[in-house]
Amino acid sequence: MTPPDATTALREAMIGNAGPEATGWTGVFGLPPAPRKGAKVLILGAGIAGLTTAYELSKRGYDCTVLEAQDRVGGRNRTARNGDVLTELDETGDVYETHRCDFDRGLYLNLGPGRIPYHHRRVLKYCRDFEVALEPYVMETTANLVSLSNGRSLRWRNRRVANDTRGHLAARIAGTLTEQDAFSGKLFDLLRAFGALDEDGVYRGSTRSGYSEDLDVHDFPRPAPPLGFEELVESEFWKQHFYQPADYLWQASMFQPVGGMDRIVDAFRKRIETEFGDEVLELEAEVVGIEILEEGGVAVEYRREGVPNRAIADYVVSSIPLPVLRKIVRSNFSAEFENAIKVVPYASTCKVGWQANERFWEDEPDKIYGGISWTDHNITQMWYPSNDYFSGKGTLTGAYNFDEDAVKLGALHPDGRLGEARAGAIRLHRQFEREDVVPTDKGVSIAWHRVPYQLGGWAAWDPRKPDHRVAYKQLLQPEGQGRFFVTGDQASPLPGWQEGAMMSAHYVMGQILGAIPLTVTEDVRVPDSAALTQGTT
Amino acid sequence: MTPPDATTALREAMIGNAGPEATGWTGVFGLPPAPRKGAKVLILGAGIAGLTTAYELSKRGYDCTVLEAQDRVGGRNRTARNGDVLTELDETGDVYETHRCDFDRGLYLNLGPGRIPYHHRRVLKYCRDFEVALEPYVMETTANLVSLSNGRSLRWRNRRVANDTRGHLAARIAGTLTEQDAFSGKLFDLLRAFGALDEDGVYRGSTRSGYSEDLDVHDFPRPAPPLGFEELVESEFWKQHFYQPADYLWQASMFQPVGGMDRIVDAFRKRIETEFGDEVLELEAEVVGIEILEEGGVAVEYRREGVPNRAIADYVVSSIPLPVLRKIVRSNFSAEFENAIKVVPYASTCKVGWQANERFWEDEPDKIYGGISWTDHNITQMWYPSNDYFSGKGTLTGAYNFDEDAVKLGALHPDGRLGEARAGAIRLHRQFEREDVVPTDKGVSIAWHRVPYQLGGWAAWDPRKPDHRVAYKQLLQPEGQGRFFVTGDQASPLPGWQEGAMMSAHYVMGQILGAIPLTVTEDVRVPDSAALTQGTT
Repeated sequence: MTPPDATTALREAMIGNAGPEATGWTGVFGLPPAPRKGAKVLILGAGIAGLTTAYELSKRGYDCTVLEAQDRVGGRNRTARNGDVLTELDETGDVYETHRCDFDRGLYLNLGPGRIPYHHRRVLKYCRDFEVALEPYVMETTANLVSLSNGRSLRWRNRRVANDTRGHLAARIAGTLTEQDAFSGKLFDLLRAFGALDEDGVYRGSTRSGYSEDLDVHDFPRPAPPLGFEELVESEFWKQHFYQPADYLWQASMFQPVGGMDRIVDAFRKRIETEFGDEVLELEAEVVGIEILEEGGVAVEYRREGVPNRAIADYVVSSIPLPVLRKIVRSNFSAEFENAIKVVPYASTCKVGWQANERFWEDEPDKIYGGISWTDHNITQMWYPSNDYFSGKGTLTGAYNFDEDAVKLGALHPDGRLGEARAGAIRLHRQFEREDVVPTDKGVSIAWHRVPYQLGGWAAWDPRKPDHRVAYKQLLQPEGQGRFFVTGDQASPLPGWQEGAMMSAHYVMGQILGAIPLTVTEDVRVPDSAALTQGTT
Repeated sequence: MTPPDATTALREAMIGNAGPEATGWTGVFGLPPAPRKGAKVLILGAGIAGLTTAYELSKRGYDCTVLEAQDRVGGRNRTARNGDVLTELDETGDVYETHRCDFDRGLYLNLGPGRIPYHHRRVLKYCRDFEVALEPYVMETTANLVSLSNGRSLRWRNRRVANDTRGHLAARIAGTLTEQDAFSGKLFDLLRAFGALDEDGVYRGSTRSGYSEDLDVHDFPRPAPPLGFEELVESEFWKQHFYQPADYLWQASMFQPVGGMDRIVDAFRKRIETEFGDEVLELEAEVVGIEILEEGGVAVEYRREGVPNRAIADYVVSSIPLPVLRKIVRSNFSAEFENAIKVVPYASTCKVGWQANERFWEDEPDKIYGGISWTDHNITQMWYPSNDYFSGKGTLTGAYNFDEDAVKLGALHPDGRLGEARAGAIRLHRQFEREDVVPTDKGVSIAWHRVPYQLGGWAAWDPRKPDHRVAYKQLLQPEGQGRFFVTGDQASPLPGWQEGAMMSAHYVMGQILGAIPLTVTEDVRVPDSAALTQGTT
């Protein structure tokens, strides 16, 4: 499916010929010397893709300026801290302050990306180079909960759901083994190890699901009675993302920056400003028009702190989210491009954050140290902190939901969101009934699809839609004979991931540097955004 | 099986009536006021059980002295650091210095216990109370390796072995579903989610096993081709502890103290010496005789720095490992006790530690950040550090083996052990061929079955042996009408675990305080030490 010429060029330019298992950390090594050193580059948007482009092209001698509409850099990489102002669009499209974050000082919560897979080499490489300290992000612990309301109210520990299911499935196969199975002896042995089956191939429960009662010195640990197979199957627990941690993107080890995801943004900003000057990043510079000039170059009209400005550059690299770009006046773009940017919707997604004045989830009876509890309530999931264990207070991600759930939650006033999120949280932890433990006035929420200059969580690409295939391919090719480029996770195989944003930035940079063809000649495969952000359920 | 009276008394004394899910952190709260405050207690051995006993009984007003044969406290809780002297017994039983640890300063490796399960509440409680900082111990990552030599040489990533096995097993069930299955529709749906099956219930590979090639912007991630089911089954990979991380004792989240496991020992020592005086801990005090006195009390003969001493106490609590206790002169012990201490062997187990001058396993192509690689080589396993990620140097556990493997490795001179361990390590990582990366002169090894005053890793209890049942029960009952007690993980349902040592210490303390009966009236269940230390394979 992939055009061999472009792919080969990309690989060789970025990683050399070392083969797929030796691709280095970021893929930006081995680029040719900049062919147009000193050329003027305007980068639209100071999210991860924009910052990466600015840093790398500046390093290669290009004259970069980043225009960022907001008064902060980072885009969706945002960490809520005391005093932070959160804004969204109201029904009429006007920006308003929804609330301020009132966490105690020192506490924080990642409102956007919250974790880094071990195979996202670009993100890890920049963290290493920029000395952003990383610590493990714990995606799953067997103390996490599954809370289901379908039929009747169920509240199960992860360890029971995971291991009793395994045991029942293994036993089902063991019961069907015949002499005809060429390797049935070994297969039986595997099934026993896989499912914790008895010597006769029956699943009677396992200590993998926990102990039946607390240990005492008189008593070797005995398994808890297993959940019934039919009960498990009827519950449809897997529909609540239960197996998401098995997917490659969420497998151990994952990481998080110590102190918040925006440490990455801070590091980029500091590097760019220190190495290339404060003037590279222009904040509160809202782009309102883009014109591909007939005489060459691209003109960008923008308002800086309300004042109209116009800049002309040799190259423009736009990381502006497509739904925002659609509203900006454009001149001399191709019809194919105009069609492409209209096709893909941006995903609705909300997060809620709580400050808890006691880390009750680490105590009896929960013993939860990180990971995620899943629920069929609108909140969808609750994240527990992977840091500052055993300390006094902590923050919890009290909702992270998608699609209709997110539209519904996001339509509420922030107070209403917290009320809804609290109701979901109480199903997991009774401590949420107590205002003194989890105060409403320290709760935060964000509906990304209502956030100005974002208008969604990520491009909702769907490979089943033919027009998405056309549009995605179009976005990989610059406009104006190689002068206007779209970047960001929206133009990458990893929508919603910082690695995708960096990957796209490197790709565009490769095109600007002449190492990657400007034209994609064959079909491309469109990313499945739902699977890539929520797992293959 | 458990005597209800003793169990009930134990529970109520230790945890109140709050039920099994609300047992607090350690089980030592709610004990009655000390009935014999000021009584003299001699504690033999300053490992975790001895230190716990000394701390808790001292806190309750008992006059405690700990006699420790070695010049350090901690017992098997030992962390190797620069300059540490390692000693073992030679063939004639004499102690000799095997080598010194020559790690660079700041590096360390846990030679004994290395991880704390999230449900080991006593250990966690003491860490919290004593302000021992904890960080996640990563037990498994999907980048870890499985290296098998049976038949032909195989070297697979964990993610492929784990997920391709799941897929094949799920597909096998999917292929057998019939209309008769009352819930086949939902079961089919579960199987698809569990095994990453196609819409037709077939397993054709999954990105859970990794990508077929590095991502590029033209190409949605595609799965690596699956390992064949027959190949997986024929390999018998599960026999190399592959599913140990599924067992309750090794499930996420696990912890390790920041800076080394001996931070726990240091904290106990500091607390005891600060709160109760330096004289509580007597080092280099080797017990040579124990006599239960007819006139009451117990006499202990010991050599302190070579000089004979004798002390008499109201109570003696011995955490001396049974193989060591067997060699100490004993007077007026019951025949039942004499039989009991002879029954259980101690397990042979070795560890090897390497200093690596580059953290090559974190780089391409491995991308390993913690967890364990498994192999059928004598080294059995290799642990990667869960701390100081992305830093310069690091330490690896280059072997942790058992039984005959450990006997064989332990019989070698330390240089020979390192040679053998290097051969096993090279099968996992070619970097072990380079002395400049992994220098031999910075390697350490320990054969716990040859370590003086330890003589093994843990009591190798086996519930299938009737005489073990008799012996284990006997050790839960004091000698001399409640004057001489055996403690340690050796007398607990968690052999080889610090939690077991603390649990036993709390149990003995409960007996001394009169909260727990001295006599066990019914049968007890004997721990299965192999399963509890190596998983149920």
